[in-house]
Amino acid sequence: MIRIALDAMGGDFAPKEIVKGALEAARELPISIILVGNELKIESELKRYKPLPNISVVHASEVIGMDEPPISSVKNKKDASINVAMDLVKEGKADAVVSAGNTGALMASALFKLGRISGIERPAIATIFPTQKGEVLLLDMGANVDCKPQHMLQFAEMGSLYAERVMHIKKPKVGLLNIGEEPEKGNELTMEAYPLLSAAPINFVGNVEGKDILPGKIDVIVCDGFVGNMILKFAESVSRTVFALLNEELAKSPVAKLGALFLLPVFRNLRKRIDYDELGGAPLLGVAGVCIKAHGRARAKAIKNAIRVAAEAVSEKIVERMSHLGE
Amino acid sequence: MIRIALDAMGGDFAPKEIVKGALEAARELPISIILVGNELKIESELKRYKPLPNISVVHASEVIGMDEPPISSVKNKKDASINVAMDLVKEGKADAVVSAGNTGALMASALFKLGRISGIERPAIATIFPTQKGEVLLLDMGANVDCKPQHMLQFAEMGSLYAERVMHIKKPKVGLLNIGEEPEKGNELTMEAYPLLSAAPINFVGNVEGKDILPGKIDVIVCDGFVGNMILKFAESVSRTVFALLNEELAKSPVAKLGALFLLPVFRNLRKRIDYDELGGAPLLGVAGVCIKAHGRARAKAIKNAIRVAAEAVSEKIVERMSHLGE
Repeated sequence: MIRIALDAMGGDFAPKEIVKGALEAARELPISIILVGNELKIESELKRYKPLPNISVVHASEVIGMDEPPISSVKNKKDASINVAMDLVKEGKADAVVSAGNTGALMASALFKLGRISGIERPAIATIFPTQKGEVLLLDMGANVDCKPQHMLQFAEMGSLYAERVMHIKKPKVGLLNIGEEPEKGNELTMEAYPLLSAAPINFVGNVEGKDILPGKIDVIVCDGFVGNMILKFAESVSRTVFALLNEELAKSPVAKLGALFLLPVFRNLRKRIDYDELGGAPLLGVAGVCIKAHGRARAKAIKNAIRVAAEAVSEKIVERMSHLGE
Repeated sequence: MIRIALDAMGGDFAPKEIVKGALEAARELPISIILVGNELKIESELKRYKPLPNISVVHASEVIGMDEPPISSVKNKKDASINVAMDLVKEGKADAVVSAGNTGALMASALFKLGRISGIERPAIATIFPTQKGEVLLLDMGANVDCKPQHMLQFAEMGSLYAERVMHIKKPKVGLLNIGEEPEKGNELTMEAYPLLSAAPINFVGNVEGKDILPGKIDVIVCDGFVGNMILKFAESVSRTVFALLNEELAKSPVAKLGALFLLPVFRNLRKRIDYDELGGAPLLGVAGVCIKAHGRARAKAIKNAIRVAAEAVSEKIVERMSHLGE
């Protein structure tokens, strides 16, 4: 049975929604879940539900906050929930870690405790964007701000493997994020990365532009961590801005407000389609263990989905397969 | 009287909307406008309106399309409307160029014909984003894909000057686009640019993130052309995607469609607030002449606004002022 170490203290709605998501997953999936964090707090959440045999708790006395500096926090807070969860994998007591907490701390802890997959130079943070049809995997989202072409190649290979095995996309289309479609377009990094990706045993479809992310015609999009993080943060702010403007305009007109009532199901569906809760969580790729990051605002459903994805990555032996990429 | 050379053939709605915009500007502003392009086509548009003494036409036999390679097109099509318009400025027959055509060709033609402002190493393409309150000037948007810290400094200085003089923002807040707020965050380029911007005689507010673009609290945001172009293209696709999803959802529900009717004024206002037509056109900064780029989908109103902005940049002696930056 696959065993998932779940950071019960990470994320905006921890531990409540994390514990709830764990129970939903434990009910539906043939896995066991180890809740890691403040024992008292976790137990008081668990009391709300009927006990399940495949849920257990491991105490951790510290927590790393969302805004704490990743590396120093991971080093100084030895007993942080994310560190304790990672130790469980290191000691062979768990097969994967899931956390909705500080992304940088998750990466730092994974690197300190589990290390890199042999042959992978730079592990990457991937993220999953909802698109007009399906999902797209983007990487790197900020682990590596200054990249070499060789790193981009490995991002492409790891992303392709993950999309195929865990996202179940056959021959995933891999694109290089650039400012033009022609092979000779771009900055030094993308121009040098292009031929490497072309020669790789992946379904490389060439350069793709910023406008190609959301339509959903590409399955895996590769960029350096500076650009990726920029796009991610910008994208998150766009929906906030659109809804803020919409509310401002609605406030001006009672008639429009009335009309908006009829549109509630539409807005709900729209929201659902762009919502993190429906996505499966984003992997750290290239670290020597399965680590899935759920969104910081993840609620129970998103946590359940992240756990499901982690279990799939384990059963698909994703780490072992990636260790062959460097050969 | 300020004389504007207007590329009548550039943009998706040329020459019709360009000519219409020129007439609106000529009626409202104390300027003269030289329409540059295919004489027959321009005259046939002009016939629709009452003649104005401050509108004239200069023939150009060629056009550079939106997707043509900028540098070779500008070199090969000597009689392209954008080249002829630029010649008018070079020969002292016009004070500024306005075009809704190929941005790269506009920049290439400006560089060939007018050159750089002395002391400015890399001219930049700026763009104006609508925000929750007011506008933000972003640069560079793609003229320089690999930048040095010194270039970022000059982008900041040029952007600040432009925002103050032409956008009429007192002490414009200038931010460096980065993936974290702390000075030590970022890639090599932004980390080295930070102290240069800090020491510059501008109102530098430090690093800003992707999420800080749209709320509108910053007036000028500086980034390299690769990142800027990426953000620009991504942003343009977001509204398309949101409206596509909205339409898909509306199609599923007749009740919601009915409700949407009540919301039409709201959608119209929302659109107006994020619409290019309301913006003033974006400047090329650092070339030795006033060049304003209107959006490729610009209609008459946007053209009129771009002409107004060009006239202001001329009367504010923006080129002369920038020539002191390099001293």
